[in-house]
Amino acid sequence: MQIAILLYEGFTALDAVGPYEALAALPGATVVFTAERPGPVTADTGMLSLIAEANLDDVPHPDVLLVPGSSRSTAAQMARGPVRDWLSSADVHTSWTTSVCTGSLILAAAGLLTGRRATSHWLTLDQLAGYGATPERQRVVIDGKYVTAAGVSAGIDMALKLAGGIAGQPVAEAIQLMMEYDPQPPFGAGSPATAPADLVSQLRWRYRDVRAPASG
Amino acid sequence: MQIAILLYEGFTALDAVGPYEALAALPGATVVFTAERPGPVTADTGMLSLIAEANLDDVPHPDVLLVPGSSRSTAAQMARGPVRDWLSSADVHTSWTTSVCTGSLILAAAGLLTGRRATSHWLTLDQLAGYGATPERQRVVIDGKYVTAAGVSAGIDMALKLAGGIAGQPVAEAIQLMMEYDPQPPFGAGSPATAPADLVSQLRWRYRDVRAPASG
Repeated sequence: MQIAILLYEGFTALDAVGPYEALAALPGATVVFTAERPGPVTADTGMLSLIAEANLDDVPHPDVLLVPGSSRSTAAQMARGPVRDWLSSADVHTSWTTSVCTGSLILAAAGLLTGRRATSHWLTLDQLAGYGATPERQRVVIDGKYVTAAGVSAGIDMALKLAGGIAGQPVAEAIQLMMEYDPQPPFGAGSPATAPADLVSQLRWRYRDVRAPASG
Repeated sequence: MQIAILLYEGFTALDAVGPYEALAALPGATVVFTAERPGPVTADTGMLSLIAEANLDDVPHPDVLLVPGSSRSTAAQMARGPVRDWLSSADVHTSWTTSVCTGSLILAAAGLLTGRRATSHWLTLDQLAGYGATPERQRVVIDGKYVTAAGVSAGIDMALKLAGGIAGQPVAEAIQLMMEYDPQPPFGAGSPATAPADLVSQLRWRYRDVRAPASG
């Protein structure tokens, strides 16, 4: 089973590495980090680069495709040219087409989520509707073979759920135990529903450009 | 504030990237991935490489030092030579010396946790005692400036706690909300206390070599 994780300049590293850690542990799975050009790809902080071992043409038919998000407004830019072509043609053959955070906007802008239920980072959730998808405020949304996760850390929950779907619950539980994924967040601010209301407002204002339509 | 994350061949990627994602968002913080030699460093799956931008000599006095773990038995090997020298001399000046997963064995083998309470991956927790530390089965253990996290995903909880200690709870809450860290594990197998008992036994057997004393 080949799992392709797309990398692009400005991606959010944990969006990619959280799911990688769970999916690479699937028996018989190979995770391939792929990008338009092989080599280092720098994350959105500018402080970390991951290596893309393959270019898009090297991975034409992955079984699982995963698109991480970005804290920048990249959906419209990503969803054209070689990345769009690759997403469209690879998706025809995938068993699962997945995203984390604003990665769902990239899938949606490429036309892959039209008429589908999907989620995204809470700051960008409403943008999905502009691409013909139906936004759902859930941590992980599964609609057919399309699996989308909410912001950044939600990719871990998604990948464990996917691991269960692919290899069965006992295998997924073993992966969870090896990752010691028994989360104990020190604060309760992980969701706009539970975070202080003024914090939610502040962040909506601070990231209003990311929230603007990506094609705008 | 400079935050140095040690990379070495065979490290566990999420141990490093989970905390990075939280700590890089601290106001005024710079995260530097450092290794014996700059360039690509391959994680324990063999399927992912991160770039170390700096060698150890480039980062003599980080404010925060973080050592990720590995699914291989590396503590004894790491805690000698240049890495041991760097850990020892850097630790003199740090505000926080931290680890994720079996990274605590590397700190302990370098003599930095002697007489300290600390934690580690559940499979290796008892090995801490062999290095003069006091094992504690907690997700995050803070003893003075030494902060150790349990296995892999516990680094995210640790980093958020650390972010609160460094910059105050409101800043840490903003980071948590941007990471949408509102975990919803699909299974309850994240800890040996909650996982099926036969799974815990199986993994103890399968990883008995990792569990053997790292110096053995």
